[in-house]
Amino acid sequence: MSGADEGEDPPVGTVYLVGSGPGDPELMTVKAKRLLEEADVVLHDKLPGPEILGSIPEAKREDVGKRAGGERTSQEYTNDRLVELAREGKRVVRLKGGDPFVFGRGGEEAEHLASEGIPFEYVPGITSAIAGPGVAGIPVTHRDHTSSVSFVTGHEDPTKEESMVDWEALAATGGTIVVLMGVGKLPAYTDALREAGMAGDTPVALVERATWPDQRVATGTLDTIVDVRDREGIEPPAITVIGGVAGTRERVREFLANELGEYGDET
Amino acid sequence: MSGADEGEDPPVGTVYLVGSGPGDPELMTVKAKRLLEEADVVLHDKLPGPEILGSIPEAKREDVGKRAGGERTSQEYTNDRLVELAREGKRVVRLKGGDPFVFGRGGEEAEHLASEGIPFEYVPGITSAIAGPGVAGIPVTHRDHTSSVSFVTGHEDPTKEESMVDWEALAATGGTIVVLMGVGKLPAYTDALREAGMAGDTPVALVERATWPDQRVATGTLDTIVDVRDREGIEPPAITVIGGVAGTRERVREFLANELGEYGDET
Repeated sequence: MSGADEGEDPPVGTVYLVGSGPGDPELMTVKAKRLLEEADVVLHDKLPGPEILGSIPEAKREDVGKRAGGERTSQEYTNDRLVELAREGKRVVRLKGGDPFVFGRGGEEAEHLASEGIPFEYVPGITSAIAGPGVAGIPVTHRDHTSSVSFVTGHEDPTKEESMVDWEALAATGGTIVVLMGVGKLPAYTDALREAGMAGDTPVALVERATWPDQRVATGTLDTIVDVRDREGIEPPAITVIGGVAGTRERVREFLANELGEYGDET
Repeated sequence: MSGADEGEDPPVGTVYLVGSGPGDPELMTVKAKRLLEEADVVLHDKLPGPEILGSIPEAKREDVGKRAGGERTSQEYTNDRLVELAREGKRVVRLKGGDPFVFGRGGEEAEHLASEGIPFEYVPGITSAIAGPGVAGIPVTHRDHTSSVSFVTGHEDPTKEESMVDWEALAATGGTIVVLMGVGKLPAYTDALREAGMAGDTPVALVERATWPDQRVATGTLDTIVDVRDREGIEPPAITVIGGVAGTRERVREFLANELGEYGDET
């Protein structure tokens, strides 16, 4: 004999690994917006930014960015919580700033969900690695300057003993380099790139809180950008873009509507 | 004396350089969708894909991908047309597949508009370089495999005498490599990467028409992928993803909802 009384398990819910984009709510995809509306629960940290998080009813939000006491929630906790909610039959959105599969640990979450038999869907988001330079008037690729662009993170796993990023090889590609979460370690990698032979007058731009109402942009060169950062007080979250393309900003900014009111002031 | 009769110039319109994303209309941003609705004219080529183009009223579409007779429209024609329409006071959307600033010549258009005094705005789109691997279950970055990802184009300017892409340096980064428009030259660059020391058993995936209803995915290794391409008949447009991350697909695909109906069949 079986019945609801005996606590049959509900059908397993789906987990949506959703990118929220760089922060401007209008830069969410149509699909992300729909899934947020349809979700039973939204697991998030602070990276989607205040405007997007503020638009989600508090009753369905779970902040997995910080635990009570200020300690960071472990990835294991988040993984387990996603599985638990899906097994309760919930429609779960795991909301991530930018794109879930660009330095967002979405790959680890996808593997964990699959290993537990939980159906999941990946919903891409606009990465600030591209949109951040873009709204500052900097195309990450440009036929006159580069045939490639590389994205790296300046904020590596603190348990790693040494940097896995090969700055020398990145410099040798001749392409644009975009560093996510790279404000703190700016002195270290600008030094590494100069040691690898990159010219000191290579243009560099910092875009703080790209597409947020208080976006700021600061520009310099490989030689000067650390001083610029200190003088302007640029703080995380910010994108660093290194390469000839960063000079495009000066040629276009006078007519760049992105900055004429929408995304904060020029520093 | 002045008046409308004497043909005063209307205020100059704005040109919106808008990314349409990889092809699924739901992966357009909320902003792109709004701007398409508000536009007077939409200049486009074929890359946004049939679903998105089909949703734009024909009366406001101008195809600058091909001229009558099958000849390609020159970049100069597109640049001039954008300026002309803006000077007529039109609200112009320049719609591009993916993101306008990722191998889309959006940088050149932005510079041309600024040099002619035309206000423009950049509106990012989801690039298939990230979303293409993603919907196939492949995160372009993953802590277990890579600290960087590089995007290159396999379809270089035919007027260039030799490849500007330094495959040896890209291999040396140790990061994921994503090649856009790289179906035709697959034999050349897989050879170059092996010569640069990349292991022949490095996982490689091809994603054809990512997020379109007829999406196809094919997988192999650096040694086998050319044969796989030929056997499966993979054709442009397609994304090539090279690196340990491409192996993630096999671990997650059984639970990957992106493929359970939504985006075409598995090859």
